[in-house]
Parts: sequence; structure tokens; C-alpha cells
Amino acid sequence: MNTKQSDFLESPVEYAIGIDIGGTNTKFGIVNHRGDISNRGDISTTNHKELNLFIDELYEQLQPAINAIGGIDFIKGIGVGAPNGNYYSGTIEYAPNLHWKGILPIAKLITDRFKKPCTLTNDANAAAIGELMYGAGRGMRDFIMITLGTGVGSGIIANGQLIYGHDGFAGELGHTIIRPGGRLHWGTGMKGSLETYASATGISITAKEILDERVGEKSLLRNIAHEKITSKRVYEAAIQGDPIANEVFEITGKILGEALANFVMFSSPEAIILFGGVIKAGNLLLDPVKLYMEKNLLPIFQNKVKLLFSELKESDAAILGASALVWEIKPEVLKKVPEMEK
Amino acid sequence: MNTKQSDFLESPVEYAIGIDIGGTNTKFGIVNHRGDISNRGDISTTNHKELNLFIDELYEQLQPAINAIGGIDFIKGIGVGAPNGNYYSGTIEYAPNLHWKGILPIAKLITDRFKKPCTLTNDANAAAIGELMYGAGRGMRDFIMITLGTGVGSGIIANGQLIYGHDGFAGELGHTIIRPGGRLHWGTGMKGSLETYASATGISITAKEILDERVGEKSLLRNIAHEKITSKRVYEAAIQGDPIANEVFEITGKILGEALANFVMFSSPEAIILFGGVIKAGNLLLDPVKLYMEKNLLPIFQNKVKLLFSELKESDAAILGASALVWEIKPEVLKKVPEMEK
Repeated sequence: MNTKQSDFLESPVEYAIGIDIGGTNTKFGIVNHRGDISNRGDISTTNHKELNLFIDELYEQLQPAINAIGGIDFIKGIGVGAPNGNYYSGTIEYAPNLHWKGILPIAKLITDRFKKPCTLTNDANAAAIGELMYGAGRGMRDFIMITLGTGVGSGIIANGQLIYGHDGFAGELGHTIIRPGGRLHWGTGMKGSLETYASATGISITAKEILDERVGEKSLLRNIAHEKITSKRVYEAAIQGDPIANEVFEITGKILGEALANFVMFSSPEAIILFGGVIKAGNLLLDPVKLYMEKNLLPIFQNKVKLLFSELKESDAAILGASALVWEIKPEVLKKVPEMEK
Repeated sequence: MNTKQSDFLESPVEYAIGIDIGGTNTKFGIVNHRGDISNRGDISTTNHKELNLFIDELYEQLQPAINAIGGIDFIKGIGVGAPNGNYYSGTIEYAPNLHWKGILPIAKLITDRFKKPCTLTNDANAAAIGELMYGAGRGMRDFIMITLGTGVGSGIIANGQLIYGHDGFAGELGHTIIRPGGRLHWGTGMKGSLETYASATGISITAKEILDERVGEKSLLRNIAHEKITSKRVYEAAIQGDPIANEVFEITGKILGEALANFVMFSSPEAIILFGGVIKAGNLLLDPVKLYMEKNLLPIFQNKVKLLFSELKESDAAILGASALVWEIKPEVLKKVPEMEK
């Protein structure tokens, strides 16, 4: 169909491949300039011990999708979002939730296999770019995206650009310390980082801590086995009016709000866009976040920053953001492609 | 002299005026493209109740300097660094340490008086631009400048640009909360902000707190009247081996180091450049800052960030940075000039 379109247009219709490498699954899709995703698919991230074989499977699984839009000639490039993805080097570096260890030259492997330029960044950065181009961040030059899922990630847009930092690792706001000497992080060993409180994991820990501390106090959460208390269960108890569950969101919102105030005084964004599973809590989370963010801002920053929820489907944001990298592919990446078709 | 040079050159030699408005004094100088300051001068900021009369005096006091470089035709524009200076609006907004209150249209008043385009930013941002163009930040695309004086200010360079934020107020890192519920700030009423600990004022408060808490413990600082204990006096006692004075720098360095770690995980700078009176403490401050910054960084950030002292004379940095704004004057500012000479 698109091959026919190209007969009538000066340049062929162009598509980008967006790939989101997660700890369990790797999702992909073909994306056009307007941000429409077609021909979605996914493969397991954990099936292959050998990274090369994973790339091979990705290549094979993508062939029907590529053929559906008229063939590889219609693909401008490939964008990848991945944990600990480094934009400058195109490598994934020491990602704790991937089973391949060390430094993985993903962009190079994909470029070699597909014969198309590949750009890579970390997953939260990809989501921020997705939001900038197709979501709640459209038309903004300055915003911060905070992803609240199992962990807490972030992507920072300032002066209309993603902030990569000198080494490609900027925007690890989940690991900033908001309670010095506070809760021990299960993975990093740091104490009091935002992620230990504001992630889904953090929310369930806060609930368990209160339940353990105040044994005499009734709560719907006492009907659930301790190890089965999740942020979702805490939310369900909270909307039924459970005081402890509500307190958990109050505490989480207070800590997140204080952290956001610090971030605002760093880059003074027009908006903070919240994203990820935890935002399903809605106003239960948003109300205390807003209250404590404003309380901790200098007057010149107060009542200015929009607190927004992402406008993108969670499963789409990273694919969209990764694909958006293709439209701004760096010239030096293009030069690296060995035998570019045309 | 320069008028003669201009006879031989296609375009006249160009200069910028750099102005640094402080709470007490306003300093100025004429700066060339290489960052050489000539014809320095200063006037009192507090002499005139009426802002217009202050601008008039500034205009008059600058005339000999302007004449010395060949006249106003050789001036490309005027850059101003000022507390709470807003780059976008050219106004100073609610600066606590100036006696004129509210919103001051400084850039417009200067443009009207001098008939030259004027750009304004806050003093710490101006110092960061000075460092970027003429100091320790030359050749870097990503660094954070922290000014440690009576207060704590900051300017953030990312992707080679100063981060202004959506409203021109980005980079108020001195007001980020590093000890939630901690020390009350004398001006803002906030608790536990970096400025309450890492400024010269904060250092003297830390010393007094320890002296009051541990009455039995000997210290050289006990020979000084309480109200006369300054960060300088604490430094002098520390280099004589006084344990309490040394502990004060250890505490200050720990808190500042932890704050810097958070900043690094935001924008991942190549360097943090420290500036201002407090850095005279040298390694007494730098050693604990480095230790606790590294301790609080994720492994991917460790042993990468340079901790540098400013290479500019303190009195020059703001004038240089303010003047540097002139070379990148925004087109919309030029358009606003009413009757530009030539």
C-alpha cells in the first residue's frame, strides 16, 4: 500500500522502528511521523543467553512488520529505549535488571544486523521524548517526566532538549537522596533515595512498616498476607476508606512532593509529567504531591508548575519516544552505518 | 585610539558593558571579546530611593569609561547580573536584598537611558556564563556552578547552554531541601535548605550550635564573642588545629557533598565549579565535599565528576558573565531598543 503511495510522492513515506527493551519483554512497533504505531510485536528479553541471538530473533520477528509497510527502504532508522541506555555510546551499561552483564553494544549490533542507523537512550528518557513529541509535553520547552513504576525514573527536557549530561546518564532522579539516612534501597545500597519511597515497591514497604509498627490498629490490609501487599492492594484499601492505606498515600505524596520541589528549583520546568503504574492512584497521590511540592517551593516558583499525568498509553510511550530518536538521528551515527541501503 | 583602529577595520572594535548589581555595591566594567575588563568602576546600590535616579547615576558614572574606549558606538550592548534577575522579562523580581521592592524593569530602563540593548540574568547565572566563556568551564558543555558566599547560588550549563527554565528562574539550588525539617532559613522560612548549612552564614551558625551544645569542650572559638564568629574565624581556628572548627568544615562538607551528589544525578555534569568567599577554606572544605559526594552517587556516576574551584577573580566573574550575555543578545531584545544609534 505504501509502496504505491511512494510512486506519487517525491520522497518515500518514512517510518521509524521503536524498540523498548525491558527486563522481561522487548516490545517494538513501526511508527510514522505523526506518532501512529502499527505492526506492534514483542519478544522475550530473557530467552537468549547470547546477546547476538537476541538481536537475531528481534530481526526475524520484525520482518513481517517491516514488510507490511513496504520493506526496509521505508525505514529511516531504529530507536531503542533500554535501562541504563547511553545515548552517546549506544551501549547499555551495567543494567541491573538485564541478564546480560557489563557493557552491551546494542546500537552497533542492531545497525550491523538491520543495516540501518540506530540510536539508543534510557527508557525514561525515551518516554520523555515520546511525551515531548506526542503527549502532554507537546509545545513545551521545559518539563520533567517522572516515571513511577516498580522503580522511579526520569527524563528532563530543558531549552527544548533532552538533558543527557556529559556522559549520557543525566536524569537519575529516582536515586537522589530525599531522606538522608532513611530507608535502605534494595538494589543500590543507598539510604533514603526517592525510589525507596515513591515507587510501587516503596509504597508497599511503607504500608508494611506502618502495619508492623501499629499492631493494634485495624486495617483492611491486615486481611492480606504480608508478602502479597502491593501498591495496587494499598490503593484498593484506600478508596474503601481504610485510614492506614490513606496514610500510606499521604506519606508517599509528601515525600514525592518535597522531591519535586527540589527538582523545580533546579530546572524550573513548566510542568512535571507523571507516568507509570503508580499514577493509577489518581488524586489520592496527586493531592498530597501538589500540597507538599508547593509548600517547599520558594514564592517565585509557587502556583506556576503544572502537575500532569502522561497522555500516552504506558505501553506506547517508550516505543514512541524511542522511534522519535530516529527523526533526530545524529550525523555521526549515520556515518557509522557500514553498508547503508541507498 | 580605538576610533583610529576602526578606520582600518571593516567593523569597529566591539565592547560590551558588564554590570553586577549587588545589595550594597554595583560594579561595572567594559569588556572586549577576549574577556579583558577595562575601565572598572562602581557606585552604591543604596544611595537612591528612586530607581530612575540610580540608573541616571549609573549612566553618568559610565560615561568616562565609554569615552575611554572611543564612545558609545563601540558598545554592542549591556549585560546585567542581579539578584532574582529574570532573563526572559529583563526584570528583577522581589529581590530580598535590594531596597527597591516588587518587579523592577531594569533592562528596559537601561535600554531607554543608554539607547543600547540590555540583557539581564541572575548573578549566579552570570557568573556561570563567565566561567563558561573565560574560566574553568571553557570547552565544557555540562557543568554546575555553585557560589558559596553569604548565600548559596547556582548556575547550570547543560548541552552547552545556561538552563533558564520556563520562567527564567532555574538554578536556585541553594534553596533545595537537603535536611528535611532541618535548620530554619533566616530569610525564606524554609527548613533544611542547602543555604542554611553551606553558606558563610550557615558555617558560622553550625559553629555556634556546636559551641552551645558542648559547653565543656575547649575551642579557640570560645575566645571570640558569639556574634563575631564568622566563617573566616572558623577557618582560622581550623587551620590552627582546633577540633570543633575542623568538625564544622567536616559537617559543612558532608552536607554540601550530599547535595552535590543529588545535583550530579540530575544533570550529570562534567564538573562542579565552586566559587565565592567560602572556597578560601580550600581542602578543608573540598576533601569532605568530595568524599560525601562520591559516597552518595550511583556507581555509574562515581569518579567522573571534576570538583573545581573557579578560575576567575570573584569581583570579575559577574561582570564578565554579564558582559558575555551581550555577545549572544536575543534578536527580540534588539528589536525592543527604541532609537538605536546606527
